Amino acid sequence: MSRYWNSTIKNLKPYVPGEQPKDKRYIKLNTNENPYPPSPRVIETIKTAANEDLRLYPDPNGDELRKVIASYYGIDTEQVFVGNGSDEILGFTFGAFFDADNPILFPDITYSFYPVYANLFHLNYKTIPLDESFAICEEQYLIENGGIIIPNPNAPTSRYLSHQQILKMAEYNCKCGKLVVIDEAYVDFGGESVAKYIRDYPNLLVIQTLSKARSLAGMRIGFALGSEEIMQGLNRIKNSFNSYTLDRLALVAAKEAFLDKQYFEEVTKKVINTREWVVSRLRAADCTVMESRANFIFMSHPAVTAEELFGKLRERGILVRYFNLPRINNFLRVSIGTDEQMKMFCEAVEEIGNM
Amino acid sequence: MSRYWNSTIKNLKPYVPGEQPKDKRYIKLNTNENPYPPSPRVIETIKTAANEDLRLYPDPNGDELRKVIASYYGIDTEQVFVGNGSDEILGFTFGAFFDADNPILFPDITYSFYPVYANLFHLNYKTIPLDESFAICEEQYLIENGGIIIPNPNAPTSRYLSHQQILKMAEYNCKCGKLVVIDEAYVDFGGESVAKYIRDYPNLLVIQTLSKARSLAGMRIGFALGSEEIMQGLNRIKNSFNSYTLDRLALVAAKEAFLDKQYFEEVTKKVINTREWVVSRLRAADCTVMESRANFIFMSHPAVTAEELFGKLRERGILVRYFNLPRINNFLRVSIGTDEQMKMFCEAVEEIGNM
Repeated sequence: MSRYWNSTIKNLKPYVPGEQPKDKRYIKLNTNENPYPPSPRVIETIKTAANEDLRLYPDPNGDELRKVIASYYGIDTEQVFVGNGSDEILGFTFGAFFDADNPILFPDITYSFYPVYANLFHLNYKTIPLDESFAICEEQYLIENGGIIIPNPNAPTSRYLSHQQILKMAEYNCKCGKLVVIDEAYVDFGGESVAKYIRDYPNLLVIQTLSKARSLAGMRIGFALGSEEIMQGLNRIKNSFNSYTLDRLALVAAKEAFLDKQYFEEVTKKVINTREWVVSRLRAADCTVMESRANFIFMSHPAVTAEELFGKLRERGILVRYFNLPRINNFLRVSIGTDEQMKMFCEAVEEIGNM
Repeated sequence: MSRYWNSTIKNLKPYVPGEQPKDKRYIKLNTNENPYPPSPRVIETIKTAANEDLRLYPDPNGDELRKVIASYYGIDTEQVFVGNGSDEILGFTFGAFFDADNPILFPDITYSFYPVYANLFHLNYKTIPLDESFAICEEQYLIENGGIIIPNPNAPTSRYLSHQQILKMAEYNCKCGKLVVIDEAYVDFGGESVAKYIRDYPNLLVIQTLSKARSLAGMRIGFALGSEEIMQGLNRIKNSFNSYTLDRLALVAAKEAFLDKQYFEEVTKKVINTREWVVSRLRAADCTVMESRANFIFMSHPAVTAEELFGKLRERGILVRYFNLPRINNFLRVSIGTDEQMKMFCEAVEEIGNM
């Protein structure tokens, strides 16, 4: 505590990012990074753009990138917003659209940044419990609210919500002028975006990132898709905070990542294939593994507690994510690595289980 | 207006960045960019870092960069914070330290983003008039306040405040536990940073950017220097909004820009030399030009109104900045370009004056 902090800052409970260890080389399955590098075309594009023009400000609106994303999803450029990672866009969303009068709704088990944003912007929220199988029950969201936000697939549970379920919420909230925000950070690993419904539902806001499926966590790029009036709201808050959030290299890297669709499809397919055999193998060892459409799995071991398993994996040089939170403190979130890394992970789990 | 915007967003008056024209090649003297490219070592470093590691998140704290900046200023790493341009850090500063109970103080003529931040965070502010020669009168700031923020040199006036004047404010506010924020975006063009006083004044916060003197506007890097408790406050708000604001390439580019001190000194010296002859030449043509310690000048013409001059320069392919605001609507802010560009600018001004 410092006497220089204002009351907002004193009351914050900041987000704690996954560990980025510096002491040694781990098999890093703890922050849902892609085990495969970005497209070689992206790397080349960055090298070409690393030139004298870096002295000039970037395009604050990222028009060229927005055009490419719009064309990819078959929507208008004015229906696209780009930002410094999906986290920044989520922050803008809480600041711009959610009102303090009614509670925002999100699942009790979900991305742990949501309550942090709510605190920052002095917003009330109400968490809706997942059912026993960690599924979202969309019916429970059809109550008075200040906005709904849900990741699809959900994190850290990896479970996927159908479009029909999402549209039920969008329909309900459309009548009362409230947003439904779908955080699709992991949607490209077997799910499908609800972006195609944004014309029908002006209250539907889709947020994505290039950190996962496009292997660009190191470049900090996210984007949002939605009605023009929602995008204008995002621009208003952005231009009241930081007009140039994406640097010149991030803008061209992101554009090229969208243009190289073939590479993107190959990489996501590889991750999905790896995930499928990992899930089977862990289930064969009697682990509980949630049905996943993400680049991570959510699992618990029949004999070893999650906390113990986390520690023992770490001793073997394998980092995963353990959340010491109610309901999920016997689960681990494990990012999908390469086949080789996941073979080592599975062997380690089996070995620890047999000790 | 949209029914989806909350009351905060409806009431915002977002910042309008300087024009980034796409229609043709201008002599661009409107956004205070450096006319010289970044150090060749910076470009090389970026090219080397454009590799497979971009799939991984960057270090959220930017430790290596902070270490280099700390060593440059002879302070501790814990007294340094890095962010996505100085604008982002200014935004965090308004959000973390300024309180709604007392008005924040800043000059009536200054960086136009300050009132925008104040609106975003629902803060009161009171502007203190510059005197007739556009100088800051520090005595007028020694009143009850919620914090003070001043650019040094001030923008768009280019005038410089002495350390003694700043310390008078820091001393006054130290007693009442309020911050004095010095926005030193332009300090390296002939001024000197007050960073050396942060150990004596735990309420003194210095904010800088790599966009100007280090020619990296395209990479979005800013930093703050201050007491450890102030830096912790910045970290609290940052980690409640976006944990990874600087990408991997920005982090290494910034580090290299600090390490190549010789290049930095050459470039700033060139800009200062150009500025000095431009000021003399314009004054010889009877223009009023403020004493400048920045990479821009603030001028008015004896015969042609600023608005007209702005338009006529634009017709000649020269972009400068005109603010249609009380007290300064007969002035232009002109960034210092290369000698050749400034020769063309001066010739154009003289020609327009003789028409």
